[in-house]
Amino acid sequence: MRVGRGLLAGVVAAHADAIYLVDERLAHLLPASAAKRVLIEANETRKSLEAMPDVILKLRELGANRSTHIVSIGGGVLQDIATFAASVYMRGLKWTYMPTTLLGMADSCIGGKSSINVLGYKNLVGNFYPPVEVVIDIDFIRSLDAEQVIGGLNEAVKICYARGAQSFADYLADGPVWPLPPEIAQRLLTRSLTTKKWFIEIDEFDRKERLLLNYGHTFGHALEAATQFGVSHGVAVGLGMLVAIDFAKRGAHLTPAGTAQADALARHVEAMTDIVVESGVRWPRVDLAAVLQKFDNDKKHNSEFYRVVVPVRDGELELISIPRTDATRAALRTSYEAIFAQLGIDSAAQSSAA
Amino acid sequence: MRVGRGLLAGVVAAHADAIYLVDERLAHLLPASAAKRVLIEANETRKSLEAMPDVILKLRELGANRSTHIVSIGGGVLQDIATFAASVYMRGLKWTYMPTTLLGMADSCIGGKSSINVLGYKNLVGNFYPPVEVVIDIDFIRSLDAEQVIGGLNEAVKICYARGAQSFADYLADGPVWPLPPEIAQRLLTRSLTTKKWFIEIDEFDRKERLLLNYGHTFGHALEAATQFGVSHGVAVGLGMLVAIDFAKRGAHLTPAGTAQADALARHVEAMTDIVVESGVRWPRVDLAAVLQKFDNDKKHNSEFYRVVVPVRDGELELISIPRTDATRAALRTSYEAIFAQLGIDSAAQSSAA
Repeated sequence: MRVGRGLLAGVVAAHADAIYLVDERLAHLLPASAAKRVLIEANETRKSLEAMPDVILKLRELGANRSTHIVSIGGGVLQDIATFAASVYMRGLKWTYMPTTLLGMADSCIGGKSSINVLGYKNLVGNFYPPVEVVIDIDFIRSLDAEQVIGGLNEAVKICYARGAQSFADYLADGPVWPLPPEIAQRLLTRSLTTKKWFIEIDEFDRKERLLLNYGHTFGHALEAATQFGVSHGVAVGLGMLVAIDFAKRGAHLTPAGTAQADALARHVEAMTDIVVESGVRWPRVDLAAVLQKFDNDKKHNSEFYRVVVPVRDGELELISIPRTDATRAALRTSYEAIFAQLGIDSAAQSSAA
Repeated sequence: MRVGRGLLAGVVAAHADAIYLVDERLAHLLPASAAKRVLIEANETRKSLEAMPDVILKLRELGANRSTHIVSIGGGVLQDIATFAASVYMRGLKWTYMPTTLLGMADSCIGGKSSINVLGYKNLVGNFYPPVEVVIDIDFIRSLDAEQVIGGLNEAVKICYARGAQSFADYLADGPVWPLPPEIAQRLLTRSLTTKKWFIEIDEFDRKERLLLNYGHTFGHALEAATQFGVSHGVAVGLGMLVAIDFAKRGAHLTPAGTAQADALARHVEAMTDIVVESGVRWPRVDLAAVLQKFDNDKKHNSEFYRVVVPVRDGELELISIPRTDATRAALRTSYEAIFAQLGIDSAAQSSAA
């Protein structure tokens, strides 16, 4: 893992003979010496098992053999495709990943998972096949807009908040802002990645501490899904954290000290979300009943309890179980409504008697 | 790993709720209680990456989730498809494999590899994902013909011969015959599998001892490929062992003691091959130039040397390097011709001036 500026040139120099699996929108940034290229239209249709033979065929036509190195450059979709293709081609090629979104840099580039669609079923297949090297070239951040950068910062602050009060304070002291200067990006990414690694190492099998990294995700996914991804992932995670804080305060899961700590996070996420809106991103109209329905269907719940990560006690995160009752659903609705009202999101509350 | 008779009923009883991925020709052997079934036409077209979404979709339609167990019943094609599908469905399901060919039982059920075709490229992708359990039900052997059984025995004797003189003597003492009675099958399979495990454990990374298991394969593959698989794999491996022995004798790689040991193997393989012919299998006409061409193209050679496993010294196997010269090619041709003539295989030697 390396984080720095201008690293693309060095990667290409070190892997002149590699095959480059690249988001087609970024192909113009590649030096000409990176001659063997598979350009990928980075979308959900290409991130599918049925599109995989075409990727494999292109690798074959470029002469890939057992000793070929793959370099993948792009966001989450490229990471998924490259993880899968590299893992199966001749039973596995070594590969290098250069994430180009802040979300990829701060969070998803670690862990080695792929998620691949199959005939319309989202992420039905996948595997684990980490790259031999992750190289984060901060210069790619220039190509990102406010929504993309703040989406990435939301994942980064989530990781640091989940680690504890000191880690969160350090994150804020690093000075996350928009636009994001390279020296601040370097500090924030290093902190976020180091912290995420701590979670993965302490909880390899995704049973305990690492589950805290779902903070904001159960509440946020419901919003993403109910708007057909009209709210982007990273922004939805920010809103999900706000809803979770509101829900924890109303349910008295927090002590007064914890309220102060959680409020500090809420203020930061709200300020970041305001920047997204100021950049010109418009909220879609949200059907609150659909959001609650998607929340209800989340695979992480069990038959008796909703399972959500919220701030408790002194503000630290905990995965809690809440009975699946009408009272709980009313409380969930109240928290979503409060956050939507605060952010000026038009939610169809009237029509949504569940 | 269990080997025995009548084990299918027990597997089905233990996995009533599993999804059965089964060779459609064997579906009639499944108890009705194995209700969730994906029937597979076991051929090279279905063993492809482009056919995989259909298999995944059928698993999904049968309600497969993270805790679903897969039971796969069939030969090598089923093993390949099940290995691949189980490894990627929701990032990996546990599975049980019941090999139904003698070749699968004696050899390929251990190791956990898959090989999958892509748009006409044979075995271009694959992975490693062993089943949690291999259950060998000897009763499936009844469904096999002489060619299939002897093909399996050829792989078994190859494994035991590769392990050393004592192991080979023990194998012959077990009494391999056709038809193969269940009690002999049990002994032979147990010996073969134990011996193959020894190779895998001593040489996890396929660098040294395990390479000896390629014995018969380089010479045999060339024959398979040149006849468009008109000679079946197991029978071709037998012929490959014979050609290798002839080549080693003519090249004086063997001492007199080694010649006796290698000749004992040759006599056994010849007797087995005669049974295949007596069962009604006809040799295709063989283009010797094509065989030599396929031999020449084998990926296991390097630019300077042919790399083949042959019996040396006292008859033990060794991976040797022979210069890629006209003299070597002439010697290879002589050995192929000798074995073809001995077995009554019509080879177009006249037209094959290479």
